[in-house]
Order: sequence, then C-alpha cells, then structure tokens
Amino acid sequence: MLIEEGTRFLELKDKRDAQWARIAESAEWFKYTLGGDYDRRFYAIYLIETYHYVKHNPKHQALVATRMDEMPVHYMKFCYEHAEEETGHELMAFHDLLNLGVSIEAKDLPAPLASTQILISYLYNISETGNPLRRLGYSFWAEDSYQYIQSVLGMLTKTLSLTNKHTSFLVSHSTIDQKHSQEIEEMLNKFCQTDEDWESIGEVLEITLRLQSDMMNQVVDEYDKLINGAPSRYSFLNTYLA
Amino acid sequence: MLIEEGTRFLELKDKRDAQWARIAESAEWFKYTLGGDYDRRFYAIYLIETYHYVKHNPKHQALVATRMDEMPVHYMKFCYEHAEEETGHELMAFHDLLNLGVSIEAKDLPAPLASTQILISYLYNISETGNPLRRLGYSFWAEDSYQYIQSVLGMLTKTLSLTNKHTSFLVSHSTIDQKHSQEIEEMLNKFCQTDEDWESIGEVLEITLRLQSDMMNQVVDEYDKLINGAPSRYSFLNTYLA
Amino acid sequence: MLIEEGTRFLELKDKRDAQWARIAESAEWFKYTLGGDYDRRFYAIYLIETYHYVKHNPKHQALVATRMDEMPVHYMKFCYEHAEEETGHELMAFHDLLNLGVSIEAKDLPAPLASTQILISYLYNISETGNPLRRLGYSFWAEDSYQYIQSVLGMLTKTLSLTNKHTSFLVSHSTIDQKHSQEIEEMLNKFCQTDEDWESIGEVLEITLRLQSDMMNQVVDEYDKLINGAPSRYSFLNTYLA
Amino acid sequence: MLIEEGTRFLELKDKRDAQWARIAESAEWFKYTLGGDYDRRFYAIYLIETYHYVKHNPKHQALVATRMDEMPVHYMKFCYEHAEEETGHELMAFHDLLNLGVSIEAKDLPAPLASTQILISYLYNISETGNPLRRLGYSFWAEDSYQYIQSVLGMLTKTLSLTNKHTSFLVSHSTIDQKHSQEIEEMLNKFCQTDEDWESIGEVLEITLRLQSDMMNQVVDEYDKLINGAPSRYSFLNTYLA
Repeated sequence: MLIEEGTRFLELKDKRDAQWARIAESAEWFKYTLGGDYDRRFYAIYLIETYHYVKHNPKHQALVATRMDEMPVHYMKFCYEHAEEETGHELMAFHDLLNLGVSIEAKDLPAPLASTQILISYLYNISETGNPLRRLGYSFWAEDSYQYIQSVLGMLTKTLSLTNKHTSFLVSHSTIDQKHSQEIEEMLNKFCQTDEDWESIGEVLEITLRLQSDMMNQVVDEYDKLINGAPSRYSFLNTYLA
Repeated sequence: MLIEEGTRFLELKDKRDAQWARIAESAEWFKYTLGGDYDRRFYAIYLIETYHYVKHNPKHQALVATRMDEMPVHYMKFCYEHAEEETGHELMAFHDLLNLGVSIEAKDLPAPLASTQILISYLYNISETGNPLRRLGYSFWAEDSYQYIQSVLGMLTKTLSLTNKHTSFLVSHSTIDQKHSQEIEEMLNKFCQTDEDWESIGEVLEITLRLQSDMMNQVVDEYDKLINGAPSRYSFLNTYLA
Repeated sequence: MLIEEGTRFLELKDKRDAQWARIAESAEWFKYTLGGDYDRRFYAIYLIETYHYVKHNPKHQALVATRMDEMPVHYMKFCYEHAEEETGHELMAFHDLLNLGVSIEAKDLPAPLASTQILISYLYNISETGNPLRRLGYSFWAEDSYQYIQSVLGMLTKTLSLTNKHTSFLVSHSTIDQKHSQEIEEMLNKFCQTDEDWESIGEVLEITLRLQSDMMNQVVDEYDKLINGAPSRYSFLNTYLA
Repeated sequence: MLIEEGTRFLELKDKRDAQWARIAESAEWFKYTLGGDYDRRFYAIYLIETYHYVKHNPKHQALVATRMDEMPVHYMKFCYEHAEEETGHELMAFHDLLNLGVSIEAKDLPAPLASTQILISYLYNISETGNPLRRLGYSFWAEDSYQYIQSVLGMLTKTLSLTNKHTSFLVSHSTIDQKHSQEIEEMLNKFCQTDEDWESIGEVLEITLRLQSDMMNQVVDEYDKLINGAPSRYSFLNTYLA
C-alpha cells in the first residue's frame, strides 16, 4: 500500500534530522566515541544500560493499547505486534556482553544509572497517559538510527575489534529495518490527524532522543570514573576486560 | 514440535469436560437455549454482553506480559501475539448484531450487566496479579468450546433462522481453532512446572467458565424481563426485533 | 454541617434496606448462622476470608483518587483519609483468629476462596474505572451493617461463646460508626449530582452486597465440606478447633 | 517520641546539604533568581510548572501503599495520610498565579514543559516500582527546603514586590513544616534497615532534587525566550504581566 507522506510527516523527519545533527555536533558521547580513546569496558557499560532500558520497550509499547481510550483497531494491533517483536531484544545486548567475555548472570547486573531510569520512566509515562499515538515519536527514531550513527559505530567497531557476535543489538537496532520503518510511517500517516497528534509525537521524539543521549553521556562519565579508579558499580568489569 | 501431554494436562482436560458436563446438565441457559422458545432478542442480548467482555480480552491478555515478574520470553511473546489476534473480535459480535437489523452505534449500547462486569473484573485481576501463567486456564476453554456447545448452537441457529452473517463471532470462537488450541497446549505443557502452576490454572478454568455461565444465565433473565414488559436496558431491541 | 438528605439518597437507603431484607429472608448463610448448628471452625473460615478481602479495602479506596479524572479536592481527600483509616483492619480479623486459638502466621493462611477473589476483583474494577463516585455504594453498606446483622451476630456469639477478643473486626465494622457513616452520607449528598452518579452508586451497592453474601454462602459450603471430611484448604483448623 | 538519628540518617542529611550547596554554587536558576533581573512573568512560569507537578504528588504518594508488596501498616498509613495532606496543594500555586493578575482557568494552562514531565514521570516510576521506601528520599528534601532557598526567596519577593497572597505555595512548601519533617524523619529512622533501603532513598533524593533543578533551569530558559519574543507557550502572560 502506498502511503502518502504528508507535510507533517516530512516536518517530523526534519525534526529528527535536526536533532541528530545537534547530537553529532555537540553531544559529549558522540565526540568521545569518535575519539577512539577507550577500551571494551566503555562498550560493556553501554550494553548494560541498554539491557536495562530495552527490557521495558515491549511492556510500555503494549500498555499503549491496554488503555481504555478509544483507539483504531489497526493501531492497537500494531502496538501488540510491535511489543511481540521487541520482546527479548535486551537479551541481544546481554549476549553481546557475554561474548565480550563478561561472565555474569542478568540478575546480577548493576542497577540502571539515573539517566537510564529517567528514560524508562518517561517512556512509561507517555505510553500510559496523554495522546495514545505519541509513543510513535519514540519508535520513529529508535528503529531507524543507522544513518545517523554510522561513523560512531564504525569507530567503535574498529577501536575495540568488535565482530558480529559483539554487536548483535546495535546492528539489529540501528540498521534500517525496512518492515518496521514502513509500519511506523504507515501508522503516522494513517492515524495522526490533528495538530495535537503531530505536536505530541514531535515532542516525544525530541525528549526521548535527548534522554537517550543523556544516557550515553552518563555512560562516558561512568567509564571515566571506572578507569580513574573512582568507586563504580561497574568495577567488576575490570576482572574481565581491563 | 511434538509436545508430550503430561498427566497434569490430561487432568486439566478432564476438569474442563466435567465442568461442561455440569453446565449441560443443569445450567439454566443451556436448557433454555435447547428449549427453542425465544426470538432474536434473546440472541441480541447475548451479542451485546459478548461485545462488552470480548473488548477487554486483548487488554488483559497483554497485561500479563507487562508485569515486572520474570517470565520466559516465549510466554511473553505468546501473550502479545495472542492479544494482537484477539484485538477487534468484539466487532464480530457487534456486526452480527447489526446484521440482525439492530441499527445502533457501539457507543450507544447499554452498559454491561452485573455478571458481565464481574467476569471482566475477575479476568483483569487474574491477569494483573498472582501466577502469570494462570490466565491460560481461561484461554484453554474459551478458545475451544465448539464440541461442548454444538447442540445449543444448532438449536439457536435453527430457531432464529440465523445464517453465517449472524454468527461470525460464535462460530469463529467456538470452532476448534487448531493453531490457537495447539499454542495454548504448547504453553501449558512447556511452561507449567509446579503444582501451584497447574492448580492456579485449574482454578481460573473453573471460575471463568462458571462466571461465563452466570453471564449466560443473566442473559436469559434479562430476555425474560424484556418479553414480559418489565423495565429493561434492552427495550430498544423491541423496535428492531419484536 | 447539616446535609440535606435528598430524594435520591433516601432511595439509596431503601435499596439497601430491601437488599438486606432479601438476604435475611433467603440467603443460605443468614439462615445457617441463625440456626446455631456449627462450631468455631465456621467462624474461623469467615475470619480467614475476611482477612483476605479487607486487606485490599484501603488499596482500592486510594486508587479511586489516583486516577487522572478530574475530581473535587474534598472527595479525593475523603478517599485518602478513608484509605488511611482502613489500613490494617484485616489484622483485627487475624487477631480474632489467633484469639480463637489458631496458631498460624498470616503468610501461611490458605488462599482466598473463589467468591472472595471475585469480590476483591470487582472492587478493584469499580475503583479503577467508570464513575469515580461509584465506590461510595460499597462503603455505604459496608460501614454500617450492624442494624441488619444484629440477630446473626447475637446467635453466633452465643453459640460459640465468643467474647470481645474474638469479635474485634465484626463489632468494629458492623456497629454504626457515626463519624464514617456521616462522612459517606456527606459525600453522597454533596457530590452526586447526575442520574448516572446515583445509578452507578446504586448498582455498586447491590452488586457488592450480593458478592459479599455469595462469599458468606461459600463459607457455609466450605464449613460443610470440612466437617464432612471432604478435602479442604481449611483442614488445618481441625488441629486447633475440632 | 524520641527517634534516634542513626548514622545513615545523618549521611542522608549531609547528602542533601551537599546537593543544595552544589545548586547554590552552580545552578543557572539559582544565580539567575539572585540576580534580580526579571519581571513577574518569570515567577508566573514557575507557578504554572509547579501547578503541574504538584498535582501529581498525592497520587504517586498514595500509589506507594497500593502496591502488593508487604509493607508495615504504619508506613502505609503515613503514605495515605501524606497523600491526603498534599491533595489540592497545586491550587495554592494556581491561586498565587491568579493573584498576580493572570486571569485563566486551570484547564487552559499550557501543558507542562519537558523537564516538568520528566520529573513527574520519574516520581511515578519510583513510587510504583522498586523499594517502597525510596520515595521518602523525595519527601525528605521537598518538604523542608526553606533553609536552602531563603536568599532566593528573599530576592524574588523583593524584586517582584510579592506579598503573602502571591507566595502561598512557596512559603507553605519551603518553610520547615515541623510536623511533616518529623514524620518523615520518623519513617526513615524506623523503617529503613538495610543498606539497600538507605541507598535507594539517597539515590531518589539526588535524582529528584536534580530533576527539580532542571525544571527551574528550563523556567529560566522559557522566560528568556518569552522576553526575547521567541515563540512561547507562555505568550499569553504578556497580556497580564508585561
């Protein structure tokens, strides 16, 4: 089915491009990763935080459709189907961690960082309240980020000599998943009708991408603390990766 | 994949058979429907109540997997997938009602009966709390009831001259849906391990089938009130079907 | 402050009187308790089920006010205050049980009966959805039942030689608590304005009183099973009370 | 009752002091407010955001006690009582706004800023999940901040010629409320026993105070945009206060 890309959809794309451009230009984690001065503990911390927030993705995705609000059947089906597809993706991040050589059980991982908790909290909040369509603003960038982080990914992979078995999450989640990407675009163009729809989606796009970027920045900070011998919840990584 | 049917699974089947046998023997609605002394308003009331409780099926199904409890990935996927498949099924009941000639919008339907509300409430409760597997006790009978209500269905269809366009919900939900039926059996045999698992599933099977039967009995009572001219939330049906 | 008792409030009182009259006339548990042919195990079963449902009363009471619906500040304050007052009341039922000589820890009590679970489920449902005022229909009868069960209470106390230390829950919850009773009346007369308000409150009054009565009937059935040597979740009571 | 202040409690106090010291030293909003170069629109924006987040305080406070986790009766009662006391406090902020001369209905206020939504989301999350005691880390600083913002409050009041009728929220919420403060201290010293209790409380203290500070910084940014003629959700304030 051909879906017409309306003006509002194109504006949303622009908003996404603009925010990634700002990140590429000025986000600490972006520069840091491109700098190439780190070891595998940096990537391990990223994988742990990723494990934590990704575990909740299917849950808040499904919660959108369990609300009593009236919603189109097609959109509710999308929410459940998408939840199903996202279930267990945190295990990819976890297996990447194991493949780095970190021997740990998921239940023994350190608790999520403040910035990770904040991202999770906000995603639950926007999924459980407000405009039921607005969570699409998160999916819109989260499922299609390869084009924006290609350089970062390349440097990370090269610096740390990562192979496919270490990057299953990153690659699967950043490459353009045609099917997903198309479904999200379809939902946006089919169900968003009012200004309020588009504005709340745009707001969620901006805020979640920023919160994700905040999380990445805290990963850098935590890595810095770790290599400088400050007290760290990640000190166990030294056993495996230092 | 071949799943071995364990002793506990066979006991569950027996429990289901036994409860349907009790219903066939003594439930008011069963006898009443077989009696054949009613008009299409009886069926219309049934469709309205069905619309109400079926609307919630995907919601509480999905809520099982959104809990923080640790659950197997496969079981969570089943919950979301099943929620997706059940979404919009209440519209079958609604269209059957429209095809009977009742011109009404869904939002104008009378509120659910007490017994319908009680069924809905209980299903949310067992989905949101307690053993996360126990909702399977509901799916186990609800998705595979044709063999038990064949006689009732036959009499209803004949008495009211119903054709396929009037029975889309009933037929779709009571015929043995091989795929579903097999998935539920797979979940039961794969994930239920402790006595507590099987007992809580058996309890939910018994209670939900009884609450559904209570709902059917109240449908009979309400039809009785309607044809006897007592005040009724269904009196609007007289315009279309009396 | 003097609150005028409107017509709708008086109708609600009549509804309550009428339902209690039906219970007094035909409910199995009512007749059974007046019959006086039972021992303390009957009362112990009642206390256990009471422990279970009462534990949830403050929780669903508070949930009314945590919803996003717009509600009068005064009514939300009533909900929280009432939740606070009800907190821990299940311990009265538990201590009455201990004072009967049943040595058990609360966590080892048998799980609630089907009818008790159904009552609890329905109370959560009406507290979390629908008209936010409708839970008042439950408080309206539950906090002021002494006048209706005086005869039953007298016979129970006499038959089982119960003293104050065995009836702290029953007496505290059935005597007319002037303050509570007045507050509930105040809420009803102050905040219920539409027909829908009064009807949904009347419905909750009827359904919850019936579900409570169903629970009492199941207590009788379970006692019957116990003294007749049928398998029972309460057989541990024989050690202490038979 | 005399409660002994344990070592962990004193550490918590130190943590609070230290974080306020950091805010006083380097937070943009702190310096900005002390600078005295703003008009009443700055304060109005603060009041609007305050209205938004304060409205949720009693809700997430009560939700702590509605969870199925086992909690001490005394702590649950504290949660409900505290929820009751906090109910309607957002109206103080709203009336302060009206008394500044801004004629608006609460329902017409602009939606909360990103930082305000993030604060609200995080407070719901820590109230609904994790250690049930951890929300005390928020109450601990939120109910007793006068000593830290005295200078800021003085400058704000002087610069904008504010009288009591404009500062009912700020004064009531920042002055040391002896009763509350003592109750929170009592809860902390009585119920926090494990390292995990104290650490999770300390974490919530730090994160919520930082998120609140982020909100204040965004208030400054928004004021800046407003006076510089950038598009603003607060432009309606110009009608009343410019």
